[in-house]
Amino acid sequence: MANLDAADAITPQAVQTVRVDLGARSYDIRIGRNVLETAGAEIAVVLPGARLAVIVDENVARLHLEAFGASLEKAGIDFTPITVPAGESTKCFSQFERLCDEVLNARLERNDAIVALGGGVVGDLTGFVASAVRRGMAFIQVPTSLLAQVDSSVGGKTGINSRHGKNLIGAFHQPALVLADTAILDTLTPRDFRAGYAEVAKYGLLGDADFFAWLETNWQGIFAGGQERDEAVARSCQAKADVVAADELESGRRALLNLGHTFGHALEGAVSYETERLVHGEGVSIGMMLAHEFSEKLGLIGADTVGRVERHLTDVGLPIRITDIPGQLPGVDVFMDLIAQDKKVSRGALTFVLTRGIGDAFVEKGVDPYLVSEFLKEKLNP
Amino acid sequence: MANLDAADAITPQAVQTVRVDLGARSYDIRIGRNVLETAGAEIAVVLPGARLAVIVDENVARLHLEAFGASLEKAGIDFTPITVPAGESTKCFSQFERLCDEVLNARLERNDAIVALGGGVVGDLTGFVASAVRRGMAFIQVPTSLLAQVDSSVGGKTGINSRHGKNLIGAFHQPALVLADTAILDTLTPRDFRAGYAEVAKYGLLGDADFFAWLETNWQGIFAGGQERDEAVARSCQAKADVVAADELESGRRALLNLGHTFGHALEGAVSYETERLVHGEGVSIGMMLAHEFSEKLGLIGADTVGRVERHLTDVGLPIRITDIPGQLPGVDVFMDLIAQDKKVSRGALTFVLTRGIGDAFVEKGVDPYLVSEFLKEKLNP
Ligand SMILES: NC(=O)c1ccc[n+]([C@@H]2O[C@H](COP(=O)([O-])OP(=O)(O)OC[C@H]3O[C@@H](n4cnc5c(N)ncnc54)[C@H](O)[C@@H]3O)[C@@H](O)[C@H]2O)c1
Ligand SMILES: NC(=O)c1ccc[n+]([C@@H]2O[C@H](COP(=O)([O-])OP(=O)(O)OC[C@H]3O[C@@H](n4cnc5c(N)ncnc54)[C@H](O)[C@@H]3O)[C@@H](O)[C@H]2O)c1
Ligand SMILES: [Zn+2]
Ligand SMILES: [Zn+2]
Repeated sequence: MANLDAADAITPQAVQTVRVDLGARSYDIRIGRNVLETAGAEIAVVLPGARLAVIVDENVARLHLEAFGASLEKAGIDFTPITVPAGESTKCFSQFERLCDEVLNARLERNDAIVALGGGVVGDLTGFVASAVRRGMAFIQVPTSLLAQVDSSVGGKTGINSRHGKNLIGAFHQPALVLADTAILDTLTPRDFRAGYAEVAKYGLLGDADFFAWLETNWQGIFAGGQERDEAVARSCQAKADVVAADELESGRRALLNLGHTFGHALEGAVSYETERLVHGEGVSIGMMLAHEFSEKLGLIGADTVGRVERHLTDVGLPIRITDIPGQLPGVDVFMDLIAQDKKVSRGALTFVLTRGIGDAFVEKGVDPYLVSEFLKEKLNP
Repeated sequence: MANLDAADAITPQAVQTVRVDLGARSYDIRIGRNVLETAGAEIAVVLPGARLAVIVDENVARLHLEAFGASLEKAGIDFTPITVPAGESTKCFSQFERLCDEVLNARLERNDAIVALGGGVVGDLTGFVASAVRRGMAFIQVPTSLLAQVDSSVGGKTGINSRHGKNLIGAFHQPALVLADTAILDTLTPRDFRAGYAEVAKYGLLGDADFFAWLETNWQGIFAGGQERDEAVARSCQAKADVVAADELESGRRALLNLGHTFGHALEGAVSYETERLVHGEGVSIGMMLAHEFSEKLGLIGADTVGRVERHLTDVGLPIRITDIPGQLPGVDVFMDLIAQDKKVSRGALTFVLTRGIGDAFVEKGVDPYLVSEFLKEKLNP
């Protein structure tokens, strides 16, 4: 925890709690600077007596495993750390098999638990392992990237990638507790922080105009690690928790969370998920911009609204145009194929999240593919 | 369907329905001779418009895939058959990965479904695949072994084996429909039929003295494929459905279904799951006998009760003593280790299903391991 000093000492009132309401599967998200230091105590309350397997990627292990382990030891919790390589390609069958085996090797039993200490990659993979070992073990998320804190650690979607596409194999498996230490984000690269911020902005754009306005004024505090960061993480988690509670298995309203993601996933596919060229949050940023521009083209919003979105995403340093992606891109036909794969096509129509204004997104199931492809042609060759 | 002739023509009133009551996840088990012939029509009602991937082992494919396929075609259902090798070793990670991939290859989408056409091996593996692809696809069980019809296809437990033990990786994933064609059991080997019968007898022994008495009188009709077989399958499914509805995730009462299984699993482990020496149902038969003898030793039942169990299992041709297993067996210490692995040891005490009489089993969590080992010593060296 090299980046923390005495001034960051734990002040209990600084920890915020967001409750995810799912009946018997409800859980708390605890948010604040330095919750890592009290992680052991928090876990001991939720899962008394549990032994832990802690799955962590190499980067996070190097930076934060010692502090996390110390907190567990302080609480008298026995644990086995298991390290995986960093990066998206870790979300694969062979790591899934290996981790199931390592967890059983660690002699974890039914009342024990598995911890994901890391970004979305570690969280998704670990959650799937926890869902499968002994047909479901308790699972704790300790998200260490901004994206994981505001998005992937909340809601119970877990999984790995298949050669047919991302996240195609997995389970819904809710955590028993989420611990989001906002100080831990200080060690993220600026690029990874920005990418996570795209999801924060998404919550404003899809359903909360006040939050978006607040972000326009306060984003610098979020990046700098002030109290605004805790506030932004908590409001984002609350927004996601509300949607998840209303629609745990993603049959309806939860689809709103896909704002910017249909275009975004197509862009990620178009660069074959090469993260040097485009990471998920950057794809979402460009995707959100496209969703607004497409909504404008359909006469749903005016240029002023598009302008606000463009300005804010540009302010924080996120890419907003397809042409911001370095290197060669495929033609419009490839994009249309990728879009058709991502969202189910029903009777030839596409499903998109569109918007009637800042904070007023909606799911439109009858989008004419022809309009999308004409729109994309303009954007690919501006 | 070589073994069916015109006399077996479908009489709709011969189909019995057992409802598994699990709220939004409720489903029907349809039982009768030749339900395979109307399978397509039944599936079309439950999952209209679904395309299917049909997972089947080589033995069952050879004997029954054509008839099943014809029934689907008659109902206008498009399907992709996927064959796996027969046998327990098919319940492994590499088949899991391969099948997830094949299902995606077949371009199944969210509203499509995966069918298990086979015994418990195919059912367990297919169910786990269905739980994981796209985080959960609809799943239909067409159990073709007696064990699968009365036990594994009902209740939603799915999974694969790990090198650490059987069924350690999996999911709870309920089917949308179970189709149990009792005529299809005519092609089972006598040994596999008998092994499945051990689970039928189990339902009587654990909770239904009348059913056990009925089995004592009617078992020959069950083996011969008379109306008694349908009756036995339906009563067994009803018994399992009742327990599952009361305790879907196996926290309490469902443990009664493990009558004979703690000893049985240890026996399977002791022969390293070599099915030439011992199949699961044979282990359960010996295990049930041991559970009764151990209950007698503890003064819970008399020799007359033990005698009835012994007589019936012997009548149908099932093994009842450890020494009935061909070949060398390990010593008592290995058995005790296997037992400790199977059931969780809590503060040094073992959990066993014991009985106070025919149809009156109960879960005892405080069994002294010393008593078990003394008892097993006698049985290993009679
Ligand atoms: N389950 C869901 O609902 C959901 C939602 C959105 C995204 N996701 C998934 O999340 C994944 C992306 O998550 P991500 O962006 O966190 O990726 P990631 O886990 O790969 O993390 C990004 C990088 O940051 C590093 N890192 C993480 N925390 C750090 C820290 N505190 N300090 C220094 N480095 C740190 C990681 O080692 C990695 O190199 C994708 O696989 C995506 O599919 C899942
Ligand atoms: N999920 C559960 O709740 C549950 C419960 C009990 C057992 N199980 C599992 O079930 C499995 C055992 O099931 P099983 O005994 O059906 O084994 P199985 O699937 O291997 O079938 C036994 C043999 O019979 C053959 N067969 C199946 N149907 C046939 C037919 N109609 N005609 C001719 N041959 C046929 C198979 O090819 C195989 O060779 C084990 O893996 C066990 O763990 C699961
Ligand atoms: Zn996202
Ligand atoms: Zn059994």
